[in-house]
Amino acid sequence: MKTNTILLASRPQGEPTAAQFQFEIREVPAPKAGEVLLKTRYVSVDPYMRGRMSAAKSYVAPFEVGQPIAGGVVAEVVESQAESLPVGSIVVGNLPWQEYSVAPAASLNHVPADQAPISYFLGLLGMPGLTAYFGLLDICQPKPGETVVVSGAAGAVGMVVGQLAKIKGARVIGTAGSDEKVAYLKQLGFDEAINYKTADVAQALAAAAPNGVDCYFDNVGGVITDAVYDLLNKHARIALCGQISTYNNTEAPVGPRPEGKLLKTSTRLQGFIVSDYLPQWPAGVKQLTEWYGQGKLQFEETITEGFEQIPAAFLGLFKGDNTGKAIVKVA
Amino acid sequence: MKTNTILLASRPQGEPTAAQFQFEIREVPAPKAGEVLLKTRYVSVDPYMRGRMSAAKSYVAPFEVGQPIAGGVVAEVVESQAESLPVGSIVVGNLPWQEYSVAPAASLNHVPADQAPISYFLGLLGMPGLTAYFGLLDICQPKPGETVVVSGAAGAVGMVVGQLAKIKGARVIGTAGSDEKVAYLKQLGFDEAINYKTADVAQALAAAAPNGVDCYFDNVGGVITDAVYDLLNKHARIALCGQISTYNNTEAPVGPRPEGKLLKTSTRLQGFIVSDYLPQWPAGVKQLTEWYGQGKLQFEETITEGFEQIPAAFLGLFKGDNTGKAIVKVA
Repeated sequence: MKTNTILLASRPQGEPTAAQFQFEIREVPAPKAGEVLLKTRYVSVDPYMRGRMSAAKSYVAPFEVGQPIAGGVVAEVVESQAESLPVGSIVVGNLPWQEYSVAPAASLNHVPADQAPISYFLGLLGMPGLTAYFGLLDICQPKPGETVVVSGAAGAVGMVVGQLAKIKGARVIGTAGSDEKVAYLKQLGFDEAINYKTADVAQALAAAAPNGVDCYFDNVGGVITDAVYDLLNKHARIALCGQISTYNNTEAPVGPRPEGKLLKTSTRLQGFIVSDYLPQWPAGVKQLTEWYGQGKLQFEETITEGFEQIPAAFLGLFKGDNTGKAIVKVA
Repeated sequence: MKTNTILLASRPQGEPTAAQFQFEIREVPAPKAGEVLLKTRYVSVDPYMRGRMSAAKSYVAPFEVGQPIAGGVVAEVVESQAESLPVGSIVVGNLPWQEYSVAPAASLNHVPADQAPISYFLGLLGMPGLTAYFGLLDICQPKPGETVVVSGAAGAVGMVVGQLAKIKGARVIGTAGSDEKVAYLKQLGFDEAINYKTADVAQALAAAAPNGVDCYFDNVGGVITDAVYDLLNKHARIALCGQISTYNNTEAPVGPRPEGKLLKTSTRLQGFIVSDYLPQWPAGVKQLTEWYGQGKLQFEETITEGFEQIPAAFLGLFKGDNTGKAIVKVA
């Protein structure tokens, strides 16, 4: 059968544009033994994909020009050559941006569709939720009464970080890029939320954290991070998760050197990617699902409709269009 | 009785000069119950003291203008009101820059003078040796065959770091500021040593670390550190111990932002000061003394003679005058 697919047309210089994407009709082979034919239901668009569009070595291999872009996808089994995944099963996996695709059953995870909306397995109960879970609970390890700052707090990862920090009894400060997002964070239970586009970030953070900062979960980098470094308490912990403010830079970003500040405060900073915690994923999903079931975690999605809207939804990430998880509903 | 003493005359702007120091004759009180009168034998001069000369909050309280400068001192008990420290005992402690002083016995550590030269308790078996010990073994945790880079490798801390890394079976690369120091590091067993003043540091480090860098023990900061960041392997560990290249800056230092590089490699960076490990000091001294006794650790001192030479010896630290521990022999 045929499927619509989205290829990487060219590598971006600086901020990606629609020119990076090319639609093409491709052939999908029939599933062989152990494989399933999948109909794409939801496609995840994530900031980390910007890195894969460049040729530079990073923590995941680059996309190839002329080949389909791939990422997190929730799909439905429409034809099965694998006993473990009968027709109608919902799965999540790393799959190409296609309306239909074929994959080995062993490369997919079954989605328990009775426990949450199936798109949540690309968000709260998927890669972003697990990123928040391990980065906050394993690296930052907030204690009751400590102050936690989260940048990119209204994104899919950040909003979970803040809620987990509240579960752990910490005081939580988030930064985000619009007044609507700030209002939403307050609604979610953040103690303080700062619009970094309109506030003097350094002043606002200092005012919001009168006792200093014990934990920092960084999705953004740049001037927000510079400001947090000046507020660190002794033995602070930093989970370095993303640097979206610099992903589209064409030259190496420059800023105040942080080492002196990290040294004086005996701060620990840990770069990480959620795959560092692969063996602990099932335990993480179990705990997140439990807290969600108990009403302790809320989640928000910005859902764009239509396969052909995937590039636009991706490009919107760098304009701050999304609150919570940016997702495309394909079918 | 009277003693010569060295006061902080004024706070330095940028690099300290002789103008910061003032000699004065002061009265030493007779020791009270539990106290001892001490004759200073060796005075330690250390880069971290530059920080204490500024008023800015740091990991140790600033020195007061008009008051004696204080630091690591090895001294001999010449009058005792404390049973635990009879006359003739050798002790090490945090004491003022004075020829004689009085201190509570409880604030001093007894020096086992039969196990090593007594000045080593300001170096290999004192604060610098323990700094190397905990920073390398607790934070960096080098594994056999891994590559360890040490900046300021010919300093009191760095030379111990390199030897400990060799004991642990790692490949060790050191940077230092003269050809003599480089030759000395080779003699100590460093696999590679780089004169950062004459080499292209980034090129030389890349050539010396063809398999990348797993551990970095940083005493220096600045461009050496920038170059190491570009060579980090996945799951690298950085012990952030000192930033001597920036201590005399009058403006906040600026450089390439490191976060993206630390993120891509899931690197852990830990700022620390040896006092973070206070409860483990006795175990550290015991292990270092054992390795020294077995001939596994060498140590080097640059000894300046005469109480009045203390300021010059301190100022020499920022000119790279010392190989190994800079120390002043007072008596």
